[in-house]
Amino acid sequence: MTHEHIVQAFDDELDDLIAKVLEMGNRAQKQLNESITSLLEQDLDLAQKVISDDRTIDQLELEVATAATEIFALRQPMAADLRSIVAAFKISSDLERIGDHAKNIAKRTATMKQVPLVAEVGSNLRHASKLVEIMIEDVLQAFVRRDAEAAIKVLRADQEVDQLYTSMFREILTYMMEDPRYITASTHLLFIAKNIERMGDHATNIAEQVYYVKMGHYFEGERENADQAATVIVE
Amino acid sequence: MTHEHIVQAFDDELDDLIAKVLEMGNRAQKQLNESITSLLEQDLDLAQKVISDDRTIDQLELEVATAATEIFALRQPMAADLRSIVAAFKISSDLERIGDHAKNIAKRTATMKQVPLVAEVGSNLRHASKLVEIMIEDVLQAFVRRDAEAAIKVLRADQEVDQLYTSMFREILTYMMEDPRYITASTHLLFIAKNIERMGDHATNIAEQVYYVKMGHYFEGERENADQAATVIVE
Repeated sequence: MTHEHIVQAFDDELDDLIAKVLEMGNRAQKQLNESITSLLEQDLDLAQKVISDDRTIDQLELEVATAATEIFALRQPMAADLRSIVAAFKISSDLERIGDHAKNIAKRTATMKQVPLVAEVGSNLRHASKLVEIMIEDVLQAFVRRDAEAAIKVLRADQEVDQLYTSMFREILTYMMEDPRYITASTHLLFIAKNIERMGDHATNIAEQVYYVKMGHYFEGERENADQAATVIVE
Repeated sequence: MTHEHIVQAFDDELDDLIAKVLEMGNRAQKQLNESITSLLEQDLDLAQKVISDDRTIDQLELEVATAATEIFALRQPMAADLRSIVAAFKISSDLERIGDHAKNIAKRTATMKQVPLVAEVGSNLRHASKLVEIMIEDVLQAFVRRDAEAAIKVLRADQEVDQLYTSMFREILTYMMEDPRYITASTHLLFIAKNIERMGDHATNIAEQVYYVKMGHYFEGERENADQAATVIVE
């Protein structure tokens, strides 16, 4: 191969790698959306679909890891390209975890069908889920464009998710106190709320990787942690 | 530099990288142990120490990422060495998360001091924590020795942690039903139990990396998931 051909082959491999990460991201975002829909509409078929579809994301993570490792070995990438590949590798782990959380929400759909639901929490769950879906979309676009400023915006957006989670935590605890019949359902709702909050954290991890690709060093601003659920007491 | 010097320099860099991962692992294991001690002995000073010490683990994760990226760029490692570096990079993320979970447990120590504690759960928490500490220790030794069989043992050990978590989940839910005064404390205990269960999952992620370093492909046996908490209903 001529030098030009080698450069072209490397560019193609890098594009393929990034395309796989984007496919993972789009799937993870869809899984989140469908898991909340399955829960709120008590749609067991959709829940089952979310659970099965998670395998595709798991498989894509292995493909990203394998492709990234091959590029390290064969192409000796440098500078921003090297950082993009390192980032793709790390980002794929976060997206795989987002998929796991969606699967976990879907698993609880069947459980929630059997116990009285605290309906008031539903709209907050949907709101939090929408915020996280937007974070995932924005951070993937920032990754493609190597846009550090857009990444920092995603980092900041997570505060709203954390605050919403903390207030849902308090709200759900209050329902439990008021009526013990809600305890099982409420406990599962707490974990569903936590799943969404964790997905937001994974989106911020991805944002940190995007920042690193662009800047060549890790983000040093303090990551504000607005999740105060660990200190909530309801008397 | 002569060829011999270059080989020696590479070996030293790889040893340094693995030493950093081990230091992270030892710290993560200690953080887990101390977080449970701080909780069960209501030791706020120890809890505060766990929270502050987490920063060191975070810092080490960045050092591992930076060192691994430099080795990719400068040394073009191949075969098992390449896989070890990729694995070190991934393992450091799991160890960082184990540290985060320990910090989260420590944060709840102060909250638990203010609400009536369900003492019976304490011994199960300690038991689960010990199992996970042993998993972390075993999987780090397996990483150093590139021992795939030992890694598979760690994968299997996680089933016991998952089962213990599921039974704690049911137990804690039952306490909540019996006496609403326990609801706040019990909810925090549920999340603490979940933190320990997640640390076990991270140890199994590390085990999968060890398997990959040795074998050159990812573990294909189905990972048994014995965590059934998502389906628990207590009437």
